[in-house]
Amino acid sequence: MSGNTFGTVFRLTTYGESHGPALGGVVDGCPPGVPLDAALIQRDLDRRRPGAGGLTGTARKEPDAVRLLSGVFEGATTGTPIGFVIENTNQRSRDYEEAKNLLRPGHADGTYLAKYGRRDYRGGGRSSGRETAARVAGGAMAGAFLTGCGIEVTAYTVEFGGIPATAVDIAGAADRPFCAPDPAIVPAWEARAKEAMASGDSLGGIVEITATGVPAGLGEPIFDKLDARLAYALMGVGAVKGVEIGNGFAAARLTGSANNDPIVTPPESNHAGGILGGIANGQPIVARAAIKPIPSIAVPQRTTDIAGNPATIVVGGRHDRSAIPRVVPVLRAMVQLVLADMTLLQRTVR
Amino acid sequence: MSGNTFGTVFRLTTYGESHGPALGGVVDGCPPGVPLDAALIQRDLDRRRPGAGGLTGTARKEPDAVRLLSGVFEGATTGTPIGFVIENTNQRSRDYEEAKNLLRPGHADGTYLAKYGRRDYRGGGRSSGRETAARVAGGAMAGAFLTGCGIEVTAYTVEFGGIPATAVDIAGAADRPFCAPDPAIVPAWEARAKEAMASGDSLGGIVEITATGVPAGLGEPIFDKLDARLAYALMGVGAVKGVEIGNGFAAARLTGSANNDPIVTPPESNHAGGILGGIANGQPIVARAAIKPIPSIAVPQRTTDIAGNPATIVVGGRHDRSAIPRVVPVLRAMVQLVLADMTLLQRTVR
Amino acid sequence: MSGNTFGTVFRLTTYGESHGPALGGVVDGCPPGVPLDAALIQRDLDRRRPGAGGLTGTARKEPDAVRLLSGVFEGATTGTPIGFVIENTNQRSRDYEEAKNLLRPGHADGTYLAKYGRRDYRGGGRSSGRETAARVAGGAMAGAFLTGCGIEVTAYTVEFGGIPATAVDIAGAADRPFCAPDPAIVPAWEARAKEAMASGDSLGGIVEITATGVPAGLGEPIFDKLDARLAYALMGVGAVKGVEIGNGFAAARLTGSANNDPIVTPPESNHAGGILGGIANGQPIVARAAIKPIPSIAVPQRTTDIAGNPATIVVGGRHDRSAIPRVVPVLRAMVQLVLADMTLLQRTVR
Amino acid sequence: MSGNTFGTVFRLTTYGESHGPALGGVVDGCPPGVPLDAALIQRDLDRRRPGAGGLTGTARKEPDAVRLLSGVFEGATTGTPIGFVIENTNQRSRDYEEAKNLLRPGHADGTYLAKYGRRDYRGGGRSSGRETAARVAGGAMAGAFLTGCGIEVTAYTVEFGGIPATAVDIAGAADRPFCAPDPAIVPAWEARAKEAMASGDSLGGIVEITATGVPAGLGEPIFDKLDARLAYALMGVGAVKGVEIGNGFAAARLTGSANNDPIVTPPESNHAGGILGGIANGQPIVARAAIKPIPSIAVPQRTTDIAGNPATIVVGGRHDRSAIPRVVPVLRAMVQLVLADMTLLQRTVR
Repeated sequence: MSGNTFGTVFRLTTYGESHGPALGGVVDGCPPGVPLDAALIQRDLDRRRPGAGGLTGTARKEPDAVRLLSGVFEGATTGTPIGFVIENTNQRSRDYEEAKNLLRPGHADGTYLAKYGRRDYRGGGRSSGRETAARVAGGAMAGAFLTGCGIEVTAYTVEFGGIPATAVDIAGAADRPFCAPDPAIVPAWEARAKEAMASGDSLGGIVEITATGVPAGLGEPIFDKLDARLAYALMGVGAVKGVEIGNGFAAARLTGSANNDPIVTPPESNHAGGILGGIANGQPIVARAAIKPIPSIAVPQRTTDIAGNPATIVVGGRHDRSAIPRVVPVLRAMVQLVLADMTLLQRTVR
Repeated sequence: MSGNTFGTVFRLTTYGESHGPALGGVVDGCPPGVPLDAALIQRDLDRRRPGAGGLTGTARKEPDAVRLLSGVFEGATTGTPIGFVIENTNQRSRDYEEAKNLLRPGHADGTYLAKYGRRDYRGGGRSSGRETAARVAGGAMAGAFLTGCGIEVTAYTVEFGGIPATAVDIAGAADRPFCAPDPAIVPAWEARAKEAMASGDSLGGIVEITATGVPAGLGEPIFDKLDARLAYALMGVGAVKGVEIGNGFAAARLTGSANNDPIVTPPESNHAGGILGGIANGQPIVARAAIKPIPSIAVPQRTTDIAGNPATIVVGGRHDRSAIPRVVPVLRAMVQLVLADMTLLQRTVR
Repeated sequence: MSGNTFGTVFRLTTYGESHGPALGGVVDGCPPGVPLDAALIQRDLDRRRPGAGGLTGTARKEPDAVRLLSGVFEGATTGTPIGFVIENTNQRSRDYEEAKNLLRPGHADGTYLAKYGRRDYRGGGRSSGRETAARVAGGAMAGAFLTGCGIEVTAYTVEFGGIPATAVDIAGAADRPFCAPDPAIVPAWEARAKEAMASGDSLGGIVEITATGVPAGLGEPIFDKLDARLAYALMGVGAVKGVEIGNGFAAARLTGSANNDPIVTPPESNHAGGILGGIANGQPIVARAAIKPIPSIAVPQRTTDIAGNPATIVVGGRHDRSAIPRVVPVLRAMVQLVLADMTLLQRTVR
Repeated sequence: MSGNTFGTVFRLTTYGESHGPALGGVVDGCPPGVPLDAALIQRDLDRRRPGAGGLTGTARKEPDAVRLLSGVFEGATTGTPIGFVIENTNQRSRDYEEAKNLLRPGHADGTYLAKYGRRDYRGGGRSSGRETAARVAGGAMAGAFLTGCGIEVTAYTVEFGGIPATAVDIAGAADRPFCAPDPAIVPAWEARAKEAMASGDSLGGIVEITATGVPAGLGEPIFDKLDARLAYALMGVGAVKGVEIGNGFAAARLTGSANNDPIVTPPESNHAGGILGGIANGQPIVARAAIKPIPSIAVPQRTTDIAGNPATIVVGGRHDRSAIPRVVPVLRAMVQLVLADMTLLQRTVR
């Protein structure tokens, strides 16, 4: 209801501000008997950790160590809710003191104020990207469950700063700079990133997420179509401004005969991205998310203060210069959460 | 849970198959005192009605007359649930008998079968686009409520068959062929449509939806961001394969300084599409949906029957040749439902 | 959210006022392949029908014929939502005209007005007991599903007008006056009813509901305990003022050694009513509901009009003199709805 | 869905096992600007703390110190989720080792095993009454919000071990032994408690909860009636086996003329317990819960082990001898949570 819970059966509820004592969450609905420990979750968290991004990363260093508080016993889940917490240890709130009365363009400062009437302005408070650490932890738990179902989710960058990659090795992407699926593209992306950083500016890109092993029949009809849930999940990540499935926007320019996938064995195409009528057809699920350039830039911008007076702002703090690659494990986590939920929902059908 | 209910406070639940006795729904959570009668809903339904599409429409003629069963008294809502029903009157199920064992490429035939193990195969059953009539009825009720809040939602086609329009008059679009915002583009779109129909093929396009009067502060944080709810709502419409907000996918190729909107009065740009951090900023909300070409084509396609044997299919029935323009009021309805829900949710905050 | 939907996976949404065009609902989440037709539902509806109550029944005669609009194909459910409608045919709204400005003691007239600011005052509008017809229809669908799971729910009156029955034949109770589990008690209850009717007054009683075949493990922990869901379901029926499970209020006066059930095979007692820690233990589920005397009485009562002026009211209309026995199938339906939902939820666990 | 979340707008999600690292929860949906700090919550927690019960208390000593992790800034809520944690510090798991294979009569040992297939058997795991600490913390937050709405909730024991109190001073009850509303009854209750303890047995009782300041109109119709939500909330507390509102079970034995409250100013009676048709009428809300004797008794009982073999058990551990008085603040908390939720829901209506 209030926006901090995701999912219906497999549910993640998160809490926490950028500069509060801690952030964390509760995963409820994970079936019993799923092998799980903090180390498994930590592995995914480390991919999203501040500083993990190489050239594009923030200077804030956080261990982001997850502590499991419940729901796991003798190395596996018990079916009861899994509470977890990640302490905030490296806040430097003074960075934000001077800007506390200035609204940052492209940020949620003004909209949160309009919504709530008051806010924890330190580091973006609840609207900080830091909140996504809890999503990655929840996604890792969903992933542990999905592994037992034979479902695997992979995410990688297919375009950065306007330069597309040609995906050649998506399995190895998570360990490359920018989560690049193509080692050859990395130098061009690095050059693009350096150029933007030199001018105090920021960049965006496109991330693709693929899920294999999804059985035909997964997904709910009408409003809760699998693609609708994926769009909801991905668009709910702060930096995302667009989502597409399979051919996506390109489908709008094709004829039906070019866009339809013939039903043959083995399949010869996957224009539908593995989803027909909102339900998985057994082929890989393919989704893409458009990542906007991070709005925190060192370039002077026109803005107003919270009293409405015109002002100029240069955003300080220790920000990333692109949401890529740190957003990549977040998007993967969201897809894992959707698929875990849909897998359990399908058990209520047949 | 089972996918047939939309919204949290302002909720629409729908039911009905293409060739069953009737389709309809229940709107729950509409506040009392909203002026409402069947005629107001019928006006929106008529825009989606079979045959409304001119060149691109189906030959099936349905009056789609809505009957209100509850929740309205002396010309206004009472706060109790509004039941409504739309009788099916023009089914010609025999059209589908011959194809009952063949899976139509690009359709949900096989995926519904995989999900449920059995299905009402007549005219697509529950997965038929006919179900969207109930959405339009629900959206009209949401719209009646939003009118009292000063919020107006408009939808129009910005690209058809690969040919973009230059929007000049979006307010008048609903009454033009293709819901075109640009009278001058209509002949080119008609030519494109005729060409596709001549070859038995189908076309897609891009629809834009704009909402004005949305107050700053609307939208929930984290998972239920206003853009996330819009993406969920729009992607849940059968023909949609992509959704974007504001600059959308184009934002992925911009720098932060080009994509950020300076915070000035009056605003000079709306790259964000009226949403920052998932919360409305007071500017118009702008979303776009990519509409795939309708998969029902008269061109022979390779497929399999429900036993898995290879076959060839030429889809009969009385189908549209494009989801545009009939999908336009459906997308508008979905945005109305989101905004009505978010408006009521915000009342729980302050 | 707005109170008109029951259940999480197996869900019933209802609509309809006493004197509007129709009442009805939507059952969503019923698995595919459950044998179902209107006749099966009608059988349960006929037990709740106006006039079914013998001595205690209302004079309003309604056929309460249910019409299924969707979700059933070739004699069984398809997994899609089941829309249904029951037309109102015997409204005599003029009965209520004179009392439209007077608040009836013990009724929801004043509270609905306080809640919504306006109301359909004819026959109680939405707060009329007539709304429970939709519950019985939904319960019958849940019952059809439960039959396939080996779960059977029975309801019967264990006390009427202060006179307790000694249950001897609960299976036959549904066909006896008052749903009496004990044929010998019927004359005493009839005498009590006649006495109350002669003085224009009304009576209450206690209804017990038993469910057999409920497997150990059913029910959710903490807030959604099986007994919590039952209490919620039963207390949500208008006439109910108390709910107890197993020993219920009597348990409050026992010691632990007297109230505990030893865990032996076969069980020697069922003080717990088949539920431990909120989860079924495999024994029959036993719940009881306290039914208040119907507040519509022909005795003059002090009240106020809607403007707040003192007045005297004698309630006319064609009311029952006791909610018993017509409430009995409603309570059974509510328990069926709970158990269908909990059965499906358990499938998400293991 | 999985039972660990309570409420729709004002929501509490809890986690934690009796002998795990910690228990805690998340409150989501609390409006911004509510004065709140840990000390305010601690005050309520201290009333439920192990050892708070005097004669009837467990020997386990836990500080139950709550730590707020988010959602509070400069002394008041921000509208974002409030995460909190209570560390477990005094586990003596060895107490439970010997009984790990024996099912305790009256406990959830066997039913959790049937539900999940595996369990954390230490101290009852998730089904331990210790979980209710998180409810009290959540209830305290709801209470902080309700204070600003002029709503106050009080809970007190009206019967213990079969001996009723005559309530004379409910406001002072929280500070008396047994939460007695009547100082004169305390010696009789102490004698009853000593007697039971001497024989290794346990006792139950009846707790009444009163809410004042609840405005007319609060509560949702049909399934989510205010009394239905209260019954759900109270019956979801482990020790509760019965719930009644106003006259409750006694109403079943009255005539309508005796049970109806005349609508006069000021009111002369409150047989309805402040609720008509599921909606508050402006009078105090009055509910009662039947508390069963705690099943952990030092008396030998017949049971089986987890393999199904007959056995005898004498329950060790450091258990309370009655859920009273420690359950009293828990029941109060549940009513606070219901009323906070219903208060926010009503804002979506008018």
